[in-house]
Amino acid sequence: MSLVVMKFGGSSLADADKIKHVAGRIIVKKKGGNKIVAVVSAPGNTTDDLIKMADKITCSPSFREMDVLLATGEMISIALLAMAIDTMGEKVISMTGAQAGILANEDYTHARIKKINSQKIYNQLAEDNIVIVAGFQALNPRGDVTTLGRGGSDLTAVALAAALKSDLCEIYSDVEGVYTTDPRVVKNAKKINYISYDEMLEMANSGSQVLQSRSIEVAKKFNVEIHSRSTFSENEGTIITNEEKVKEKEMESFLVSGIAFDKNQAKFTISILDTINVVLKIFSKFSEVNINIDMLSQFVLDKNNIISFIVNGNDVKKAWEELDKITLNCNASISCDEHIAKISIIGIGIKNHSFVAAKIFKILYRSGIVPNMVSISEIKMSCIVNESDVLKAVAELHKGFDLSKKANKGDLQ
Amino acid sequence: MSLVVMKFGGSSLADADKIKHVAGRIIVKKKGGNKIVAVVSAPGNTTDDLIKMADKITCSPSFREMDVLLATGEMISIALLAMAIDTMGEKVISMTGAQAGILANEDYTHARIKKINSQKIYNQLAEDNIVIVAGFQALNPRGDVTTLGRGGSDLTAVALAAALKSDLCEIYSDVEGVYTTDPRVVKNAKKINYISYDEMLEMANSGSQVLQSRSIEVAKKFNVEIHSRSTFSENEGTIITNEEKVKEKEMESFLVSGIAFDKNQAKFTISILDTINVVLKIFSKFSEVNINIDMLSQFVLDKNNIISFIVNGNDVKKAWEELDKITLNCNASISCDEHIAKISIIGIGIKNHSFVAAKIFKILYRSGIVPNMVSISEIKMSCIVNESDVLKAVAELHKGFDLSKKANKGDLQ
Repeated sequence: MSLVVMKFGGSSLADADKIKHVAGRIIVKKKGGNKIVAVVSAPGNTTDDLIKMADKITCSPSFREMDVLLATGEMISIALLAMAIDTMGEKVISMTGAQAGILANEDYTHARIKKINSQKIYNQLAEDNIVIVAGFQALNPRGDVTTLGRGGSDLTAVALAAALKSDLCEIYSDVEGVYTTDPRVVKNAKKINYISYDEMLEMANSGSQVLQSRSIEVAKKFNVEIHSRSTFSENEGTIITNEEKVKEKEMESFLVSGIAFDKNQAKFTISILDTINVVLKIFSKFSEVNINIDMLSQFVLDKNNIISFIVNGNDVKKAWEELDKITLNCNASISCDEHIAKISIIGIGIKNHSFVAAKIFKILYRSGIVPNMVSISEIKMSCIVNESDVLKAVAELHKGFDLSKKANKGDLQ
Repeated sequence: MSLVVMKFGGSSLADADKIKHVAGRIIVKKKGGNKIVAVVSAPGNTTDDLIKMADKITCSPSFREMDVLLATGEMISIALLAMAIDTMGEKVISMTGAQAGILANEDYTHARIKKINSQKIYNQLAEDNIVIVAGFQALNPRGDVTTLGRGGSDLTAVALAAALKSDLCEIYSDVEGVYTTDPRVVKNAKKINYISYDEMLEMANSGSQVLQSRSIEVAKKFNVEIHSRSTFSENEGTIITNEEKVKEKEMESFLVSGIAFDKNQAKFTISILDTINVVLKIFSKFSEVNINIDMLSQFVLDKNNIISFIVNGNDVKKAWEELDKITLNCNASISCDEHIAKISIIGIGIKNHSFVAAKIFKILYRSGIVPNMVSISEIKMSCIVNESDVLKAVAELHKGFDLSKKANKGDLQ
């Protein structure tokens, strides 16, 4: 008998019919001879609605109270899903994060899981119960509820799969898996059958929203195989696993697995006479206030030092405030371009095959697109283009690397 | 320095502005030199909305899961109210029922409080925090959340006031206190300044919705003085206290304190040849399925035994089902009249003054209203009238007993 962790996202639980459908899928899996732990997110837009409620009260909510508020969303899901399964005649019990023994540190709104006391779940499984666990939430050492940050239910599922040594971690959502690029943008985007943790991590960090990136890190660390698939289809999705297995399963060696893009990016450019300490100050201050800097570059033009870098679009206001403070007495001029996008081409071994980078440039130039910043890592090449060029660039790259012909060796059983 | 328990109902927390208003009232009380424990219900119609969600999933929800679901409503309130107070600059902490140390038995959806570990609240008060506690919920011995039944937040407030030995328990709602009768029905209904626990209990059990009746029982048992007042007005409300204090405060001795009525009642009449065991069966079966019987009467008419009694309107369907089963082989005929109402006249010492009952009958007859069932207890006389007569009957009784002239000796300071 296998132990399967199944995770269902909010769009899979948005109304009563969808909740009943999810209950049905869980029961089918149970009747297939498995023990089931199901992790759920808040239904539909509940989390956003709760945030809006808090926004009407204050623009700077207490983090502790924000977590009390947000944790209610997943409690609604566990109760309704357990009722649905109970009504269909299967033994079931709901558990909050605390009841499931998920312990985290004290960082309200973005806590990290420290430990899972699995015994409570094992006890319920031993009584033949389907166990429904509230994702996204945990108990901190003060006895308070705390939440794991956006997409935290994926993390709950993967961490539980690791702690329970489950045979499979299935992450259900409203998409069929991971695609070579966004299928809404490129029509012949292909579903990827197998992708490595590192590639998936780069995809997630580069704008693909299928899985939360911390959950992928944890999956890699504990070698938890994830099956990302659709709640509303029986088709196999994408297996996220270790590189060896991906290589073993792939019929041909594809240098490029997928293309991700993110339009919510902004480029700051700072012109300043003296850069002494300024870059250091930016880095240390931004890290203090939780702004990630990407693609930093620095050069000299007519005695002026030019510093430019990319931040997430949501951080622009905060970044302006900090930069104004840092450059207060520096005679600096600062500009910010929010009409840019980041394109990331991801594949095992990009760095070891310099012709891949060359090919990327060639495809973009041929299409009249000039990438204005470029960074290359082990398995990813990212470039910044004008926002108006991004869809064309993605389509051309997808075609240029023949991704619509991407195929895999074996089908999943 | 006094310790004050303040309880706010759902209509006082229905939107952001109301929550901020409540936060303001709490802070004013705190700045008056008091330690504050505030108990809150779910905002507005949240509890009803959650019940509707469950109804869409199943018509027979698991009680355990129902409690997980319903407890979220009060968690939303504590978080939002704590955020509002925090933003206004006062120290505050929210607590779920479990965090506040409120322990109950295992009866999901209608648990009874067994014990309150007050130390957790004392610790927070010692750190100068305003403590916001989720009403209506508790922790049971299994470590599950459980709820205390409709109006359970009143019970939480009174039980906390008793456990914390607080100097005052203020119950805030959208009405100014307890009235001689419903002011929407009788325009010159008067607010009662002082009322005894027993009278208030009869008022609550007879249809007045100002306070939950179990909370009044607990208040009486632990001699907790309750001040029922309005969230949206500075006026003094009604003090619910022991009989001695009421007598001391009342300028004149009023035999009748108030008139309550309840239109959601139904009268069953069963005609049957042989009553052996039938009444017993009805009582025992109804108590099993939680249907309360009121005003049972039994007499013989033309060899037939006639049994009639009153049940709450919400129990009619369930009562029919049980009666059909009980009388299956009895050749009985059963009828049910849902167009009736119960009027209750409440006052200390009604039973000791038989002229009060006589006066009630006289007033009703004079108005052409024939009460068709009557019951008299120590401090209450109830009668059943046709639903169409109820408003007229209440108005005439209110006038007949001069309740609009009811006045009290001292004003509250």
